[in-house]
Formats: sequence, C-alpha cells, structure tokens
Amino acid sequence: MNIERIEADLLHGAPMAQRRALAKAITLIESTRPEHRAEADALLTALLPRTGGAFRLGLSGVPGVGKSTFIEALGLYLIDQGHRVAVLAVDPSSSVSGGSILGDKTRMERLSVHERAFIRPSPSGGTLGGVAEKTRETMLLCEAAGYDVVIVETVGVGQSETAVAGMTDVFVLMQLPNAGDDLQAIKKGVMEVADLIVINKADLDPDAATRAEAQITSALRLFTQHGRASEWRARVLRLSALKGQGIPEFWAAVAAYRAARDIAARRREQALAWMWERIDSGLREAFRAHPRVRELLPRLSAEVSAGTLPASTAARKLLEASASRC
Amino acid sequence: MNIERIEADLLHGAPMAQRRALAKAITLIESTRPEHRAEADALLTALLPRTGGAFRLGLSGVPGVGKSTFIEALGLYLIDQGHRVAVLAVDPSSSVSGGSILGDKTRMERLSVHERAFIRPSPSGGTLGGVAEKTRETMLLCEAAGYDVVIVETVGVGQSETAVAGMTDVFVLMQLPNAGDDLQAIKKGVMEVADLIVINKADLDPDAATRAEAQITSALRLFTQHGRASEWRARVLRLSALKGQGIPEFWAAVAAYRAARDIAARRREQALAWMWERIDSGLREAFRAHPRVRELLPRLSAEVSAGTLPASTAARKLLEASASRC
Repeated sequence: MNIERIEADLLHGAPMAQRRALAKAITLIESTRPEHRAEADALLTALLPRTGGAFRLGLSGVPGVGKSTFIEALGLYLIDQGHRVAVLAVDPSSSVSGGSILGDKTRMERLSVHERAFIRPSPSGGTLGGVAEKTRETMLLCEAAGYDVVIVETVGVGQSETAVAGMTDVFVLMQLPNAGDDLQAIKKGVMEVADLIVINKADLDPDAATRAEAQITSALRLFTQHGRASEWRARVLRLSALKGQGIPEFWAAVAAYRAARDIAARRREQALAWMWERIDSGLREAFRAHPRVRELLPRLSAEVSAGTLPASTAARKLLEASASRC
Repeated sequence: MNIERIEADLLHGAPMAQRRALAKAITLIESTRPEHRAEADALLTALLPRTGGAFRLGLSGVPGVGKSTFIEALGLYLIDQGHRVAVLAVDPSSSVSGGSILGDKTRMERLSVHERAFIRPSPSGGTLGGVAEKTRETMLLCEAAGYDVVIVETVGVGQSETAVAGMTDVFVLMQLPNAGDDLQAIKKGVMEVADLIVINKADLDPDAATRAEAQITSALRLFTQHGRASEWRARVLRLSALKGQGIPEFWAAVAAYRAARDIAARRREQALAWMWERIDSGLREAFRAHPRVRELLPRLSAEVSAGTLPASTAARKLLEASASRC
C-alpha cells in the first residue's frame, strides 16, 4: 500500500478521501500479514503526534440495555455541538457469532449516515488482547483524522470491559432500571473500572429507576479505594436514550469527570500498561510455542492439576525448558 | 541438609521433633540459595501426597480490626474441637516495616504456646509473588505435618488479598462495625474474592453493626457474577472475637460454604493458576534481565509514556530484542 498517500489523505484529505484513507488504514492494521504489520507500525508512528486529541469514552452494558440507541442519541447531540464522532467496538465473540455488535447499523440509523460520524464494527477473530489492540490502534487513526470524540462499545463478555476501560478516558456502565431483588447484577470486576453508571429506560418505571439509583449509589459508597479520599466516586445518572432525555446532563457529568481527573496521567499509565500487557502476552506465546515446553506442558499441567507435582516446581521445570536449546 | 531425616520427622516424629523438622523445612524453602531450592523442590515433591488434608482459610482486614484476637479465639475453639491449627501470613511489607504482622505473638498469647498450634510470621523480602509462593509451600509442609486447619492472614496491602484468596478454600474479610457514611470502605478488588464478611467488635455498638450488616448484604446483592445464579453469595456475619461471641456460628458458616462449593475443583484451578503466575513472573524476569532489553527499555518506555511511540510498536520491538542473541 501507499502509506504516504494514506497518511496525507487521512490528515488533510477532503471528507470522502479521508474516509476512504481511514478505512484503508484500518484494513492495514487489522491485517495479519507480517509486511502489513510493518507498514501499519510505520503509519502509526508517523501519525502519533497527531493523535490523542479526542475524548475517549468507553461504554458497556448487557444486550438489550440500549447501548446503540444511546450512542445514536449521544452522537447526534455531540455533532450538534460541533464535534466529530467515531464509534468503535471491542467484541471478542464477534468471530463466533458471525457479526459484531455494531454490525447492525440500522439501530443507529441517523448517526451511521452522518458525514461527521464514523462507525466501525469490532475487529473479528483472535484473542481479546489482539482485538483490543486493533481497536486501540483504530482509535489513534480516528484521532489523526480529526474525530474529537471516540466512543468504544463492548458487550462485557469476559474481560472486555477491563480492556475498554484501559483504552478510554471515562468508562460508562449502562444498567436497566430494575430495583430491589430484581436489580440487575453488576459483574464484580466492572465496579473497579466504572466511572459513571447510567440507568437507561428510566422513563418506563420512574419509581424503580429512582430506587435503583439510590441502591447503586449506596452500594458504591462501600467500594472506594483505600487511602484515596479525593478519588472520583462513580456517579449514577438516570436517562432515557429513546426519548433523548438526560443526554445533556450525561455530557455535563462527563465534563465534571474530566475536570476532576488527571486524564493525561491516566493515558500515560494506560500506554505503559498496554505495552506490558502486549509484552507479557508475547512472552507467553513464545513460551507455549517452544518445542520442549510443548512436549512437557500437557504432562506437567496434568500432574499439577492432580496434585502430584507442586505448582512452583512445575513452573521452574517449564521455565528451564523454555530457556534451553537457544 | 538431611532431607530424608526432615521428611521422616515431619511425617512421623514425636511432637517436638516434628516441630523442629517443620521449622527446618520452612527455613529451607525460604532460602534463596540455589542448592537449597533444589532440596526444597525434592522435599515438596516427596511430601505432596501427604498434603491437601487441611481446610485452608484466608483472612484479611485493616490493622486494628482485630485479626489476631479473632485468630486466637478461633484457633483455641478449633483445638477444642480436636483440630490442629497452623497460622501463616502473607505480608509483602514485612521486610520494610522490619516485622511481620504475626511477629507480635503476645496478641495470640494462649494460641502461640499451644502444642497443637503452629504460628509462623510472613516470609520477608522479595515480591508479593515470591512471598506468596513461600507461604503456599509452607502451607503444604504444615499439612504434611498433620495440621488440619491452616489460617493464612494478610493485611491487604496491594494485591496480597488476591494472592491469599488464590491459595485458600475460603476467604474471609473482617470489617469494623461502622455504618452509614462512616462505613469502612471495602477495597474494590476484595469484593471479587470475599466468600464471607465478618463484622468484628459487634458488641461495641450492636445497632451500628446491624445496620452495617444490612448495608453490606444489600450491596453484595448487586455484585454477583453474571449467569451463575447458583453461585455462593458472600455472607455477612457479626461477632465479637474479644468476647468469644459468634465463633461457633462463624465456623458453621464456613462449614455451609464448604458444603456449597466444590473445593477440590477450586484447588485444581488454584494450582494451575499458580503455575502460570510463576511462569509469567519468571518470563518477565528473564525478559527484563536480557541485555538488549535492559538497553532499550528505559528509552522506549519513556517514548510510550510521552506518547511519541505506540505502545504496541514498543512491545514488538522489545519482544524482538529479547528473542535475539540466543
């Protein structure tokens, strides 16, 4: 591919040329061919000084909670305010289910055809780490192309929330308005990364939504990090994405969050954490591919699992094996 | 050292000889000398078939919550019931503070001198992973010596709770009886691993303890794992360790937990997770020690942190460097 051309069009092209360049660049990043990977690295490094200009918003919630409707409403509101909005997704299951959560653009009817919006489904296939890496890089491309709000959606399968929280400035969890015993369970790990909790469809049963808000707020008080009194405490908001109620209030809460937190510091931490995540993942991949490890691993794992070999001894044997025959 | 002798005394020795053999074996395991490590591995592997017979209980709580008083009361109660009790600790800060949380045995006055109890302070120095590994191996030695309840205490610095939960059958979080806005914050990550929550000193303010119990119970309802309706839901109990109130009820709750959960499956998962934790840790150590990585890492880390190099590109460069010059 002509990297310079893509770079030029992405940065300075007319709207249609820019959109084409962005699509090409994403295809390059999602390619598994080694020569494409080198080109993608070169392109990313060249574009990096032009990235980082967007506000990055992560969004999670179970299917049916109304994420697409919310993104449609929020996206159009932000475009009205003069923003350009990119919508990406991390869905590690998309290769299994045969379609991404964002594949069905009919649920974002107006946003998906708006010239100031760019919607891209989840990259498919591979591990969560691989899918998340491609989305992270796609986000950088969108920023270089001038999108100043990037929304990254996930359905919250396994650890995908943590991955999305690790690449965004604010992480929003969307809930349904049940209260009491019917209150929709919040996956434990998500509490550690949620900055804002939004109760959608609050118009359907305002009383239940109010009770749910009180209950979640009370529960959240229990779960603050020790020793950080000044820490942002996750806030709970009610809204109705379908009726467009509460969207400006939501964006005001996001602005309050931005003002209260050191976003630049969060991004530095995220970048380093991401580097180490990729290193650990690469080291383990090489380890598993080592001939001696491949030979020993099944037996030693079985012995550890059966309780006939100490886990630490097995680890030492496998590490010695992986260091051999270099 | 005479490994066979240690092994024989540990398994079949008279009480005093067994206690000496246990102390020697732990010293061997805590040694950093490579030849000791090989001997420790041999001893552990030989003893492994005689391990696993204890019930393993993890306990965490902030300083002042009353862990030592609780362990004293619980330990004596269990000895009364015919058990033998070992008390260990994971305290990665013990090398810094100059003393382990269990160093002050005066807080377990009667238990510490009881012939059916064995108390060992936290191994000192090293990373959390290293400290936890030694404690895990010490637990196996105690089991081989016939202790049938092992209590592992931690103060909950950093990730130590996760490490202790990863080596025990039930993980107990101890709280103070404040309620309402004064309610002691629960560290977020701990919620993911707590099986029982104990409100100690409940006699000081019974009303506050009752409110705290209700509040924590209600909050816990929110945080269940998706899709596992049958899952054990953490229970909340009140007691007074100082007055010895609620200890039998606590042990009954532990028994209910054992009956409700597949402990053998949990141990298999723990053993494999532990093996991989040690492998990942060893791989990263070797990576960091590689000459080319040592040379490149400071500059690349700084560039990633400054946002002038994509994290994924830095990771790929460093992985290539670590694979070179074999």
